[in-house]
Amino acid sequence: MSNTNISPSIITLLTDFGLKDIYVGTIEGVIANLNPQLRLIHLTHEIPPQHIAAGSFCLASSYAYFPRGTVHLAIVDPGVGSSRRGVAIQIDRGYLVGPDNGLFTSVLRESPAIVAVELTDTRYWRSPVASLTFHGRDIFAPIAAHLASGVKIIELGETIDPLTLNRLEFPAIAITHGKISGSIQYIDRFGNLITNIPATAVVNRSWQIAMADLLIPQRATYSSVDRGELIALVGSSGWIEIAVNGGSASTRLGLSPTEPGNLPLTLEIVESIP
Amino acid sequence: MSNTNISPSIITLLTDFGLKDIYVGTIEGVIANLNPQLRLIHLTHEIPPQHIAAGSFCLASSYAYFPRGTVHLAIVDPGVGSSRRGVAIQIDRGYLVGPDNGLFTSVLRESPAIVAVELTDTRYWRSPVASLTFHGRDIFAPIAAHLASGVKIIELGETIDPLTLNRLEFPAIAITHGKISGSIQYIDRFGNLITNIPATAVVNRSWQIAMADLLIPQRATYSSVDRGELIALVGSSGWIEIAVNGGSASTRLGLSPTEPGNLPLTLEIVESIP
Amino acid sequence: MSNTNISPSIITLLTDFGLKDIYVGTIEGVIANLNPQLRLIHLTHEIPPQHIAAGSFCLASSYAYFPRGTVHLAIVDPGVGSSRRGVAIQIDRGYLVGPDNGLFTSVLRESPAIVAVELTDTRYWRSPVASLTFHGRDIFAPIAAHLASGVKIIELGETIDPLTLNRLEFPAIAITHGKISGSIQYIDRFGNLITNIPATAVVNRSWQIAMADLLIPQRATYSSVDRGELIALVGSSGWIEIAVNGGSASTRLGLSPTEPGNLPLTLEIVESIP
Repeated sequence: MSNTNISPSIITLLTDFGLKDIYVGTIEGVIANLNPQLRLIHLTHEIPPQHIAAGSFCLASSYAYFPRGTVHLAIVDPGVGSSRRGVAIQIDRGYLVGPDNGLFTSVLRESPAIVAVELTDTRYWRSPVASLTFHGRDIFAPIAAHLASGVKIIELGETIDPLTLNRLEFPAIAITHGKISGSIQYIDRFGNLITNIPATAVVNRSWQIAMADLLIPQRATYSSVDRGELIALVGSSGWIEIAVNGGSASTRLGLSPTEPGNLPLTLEIVESIP
Repeated sequence: MSNTNISPSIITLLTDFGLKDIYVGTIEGVIANLNPQLRLIHLTHEIPPQHIAAGSFCLASSYAYFPRGTVHLAIVDPGVGSSRRGVAIQIDRGYLVGPDNGLFTSVLRESPAIVAVELTDTRYWRSPVASLTFHGRDIFAPIAAHLASGVKIIELGETIDPLTLNRLEFPAIAITHGKISGSIQYIDRFGNLITNIPATAVVNRSWQIAMADLLIPQRATYSSVDRGELIALVGSSGWIEIAVNGGSASTRLGLSPTEPGNLPLTLEIVESIP
Repeated sequence: MSNTNISPSIITLLTDFGLKDIYVGTIEGVIANLNPQLRLIHLTHEIPPQHIAAGSFCLASSYAYFPRGTVHLAIVDPGVGSSRRGVAIQIDRGYLVGPDNGLFTSVLRESPAIVAVELTDTRYWRSPVASLTFHGRDIFAPIAAHLASGVKIIELGETIDPLTLNRLEFPAIAITHGKISGSIQYIDRFGNLITNIPATAVVNRSWQIAMADLLIPQRATYSSVDRGELIALVGSSGWIEIAVNGGSASTRLGLSPTEPGNLPLTLEIVESIP
């Protein structure tokens, strides 16, 4: 990337709010009202409702492509109004703002927290008073706007030990007798099945995927095979994926395209003859 | 809010155009072509086709969160090409632009019209000529761009009496013998049922909702109850809502999640023992 | 339009990526990372997966509304990773960037290519290395950002003969004995059926549409008839359309609203008594 200067004026937004209502637009209004110079970039608002794991995967797949100093506002918040904390976290490339419910698990695996703060200073919330059910509008959006406008993270509340941040537990991959067992962590719009097996696990090996009674061959690109063929490949975010050229692997395998992921589907990476 | 200066460069856009076609992008192009410095913020484009009442509700739920001087462009326009007027309306916080078909009813209840103008001056329309079926692109978008660029509202056409602006008639709430009878005015993406009963009607009372043969208890937040329980609460826009913690009230009650609202569903707020 | 200066800082984006994943947001991040001053305007991301013809139609329906110098980034790319070329094309009003698979067919019919370049210079790609499956993020987005930032198109790779650009073949219209035979090229969100017959073909004629056993009368606007009536009219992009006032023509005629278009449905424009 050619531009690595601090550029504190970008906020990204990832939610499960959908686009049917005005929740997303209202958040953009609150931010514009605090500082009209800030730019908001929408990651996605179609995280399946209250599905924290899908939110964690999507944020981790995209945050690294933004300028240094970007504030990533993420709101998938089934516990809004409960005792779950609101947090702001500084990482090497920028900031994370949202509920402390595991939503940042996947980002923090790659980019450890440098500073973490519980959002306790109400001066940085929307006044006169925050609702009990829409902290996105009333707490997280103003906090993101203040951070992106130059307020120091430690001003926003009480510093907390990053080790106390909530983390999701994801299914692990297992390596036994040369086989790698994993699962599907996400299904995208095209019906591609994104596994939890990183490409780094298969470097310099010839491999294929065994799943149910299928053997799925490895190919470099979707179009390496005829239309309609099921293949395995290294996807654009560095995970092994199962795809159908010109079609949908999820439809082919009878999986719901709206399945939020973390399917208990066992697959194995096995050797193949090159 | 910390920033209350006039900031005339923001336009919001609310439509029933959906996101499948290029109608929304074309409007953004027309605005950028007139003044590339203007910023467009999307409220929603998923108003059910031609459902003016849902548009009215959504605009009223969001306009107050934007900076003073914002121009709210709203297009749900089943009568495009008919004799219905196009209007621009000045309110305390900014401007409204769109068809005079009742779309601004809910905003105008809260923020009376200060000036209203029928959009008759074709110099501010897109040239060479306006289509008969897409006034959003050819009349309303240019008008919003001119207003946000500093053209005075009275330049845009003939001043009209605000009392002549079309208003929708919404179901009223009724208060009898300590009971408040109302209906559902909107169902959101999460399946929350937003009633037409304002929170101010139940201040300092213990209450619950009686609907069909259900008694729905009042709680402060979604997570005050076990997952799957039906509750009533004060929602983030100040209306009483019916929700399911971790689920969808509309699904639970057999209502369509795409129902545009204004269901003829009677509910009553009744006293409960605190 | 009042502003016809070169305004090189706008990029539009049209894809089949949908809004459920972070593919679109990631592209916006890549562009912001290269030049935070650039503005991205979204045309649509709901082109049916891999449906190049629908992408071609949508781009042609919207590009002319943007300021001169706009860079139109379009990605519907079933052949990603194959030998299909990536191209940048200069036209009178601006630039086109994307795969050379026919996606620009409809724009190039109206606005011939002035310069065409195959994207071979890897200095303008995302470093360290481009993926094989996401050229949108790794090649096309950086190219669009560089073009919009002032890099000259001939710097981006090897100049090619515009005549070698891939073009889709669309069904032609036929004119025989005063009848015009055509087909449906696109169905929009409202269920309007957009034919491939231009309004210019029926200027100064009284006409109606004959389709299957229906005779569909011509009207000027949707609201010229009672709700629920099927009509034909000149649509906002200059094509003859079939619509239902207050309803959906595609539903009425039993066509799928998600049908990507190019239906083999024969219709005829026939004389009517004025």
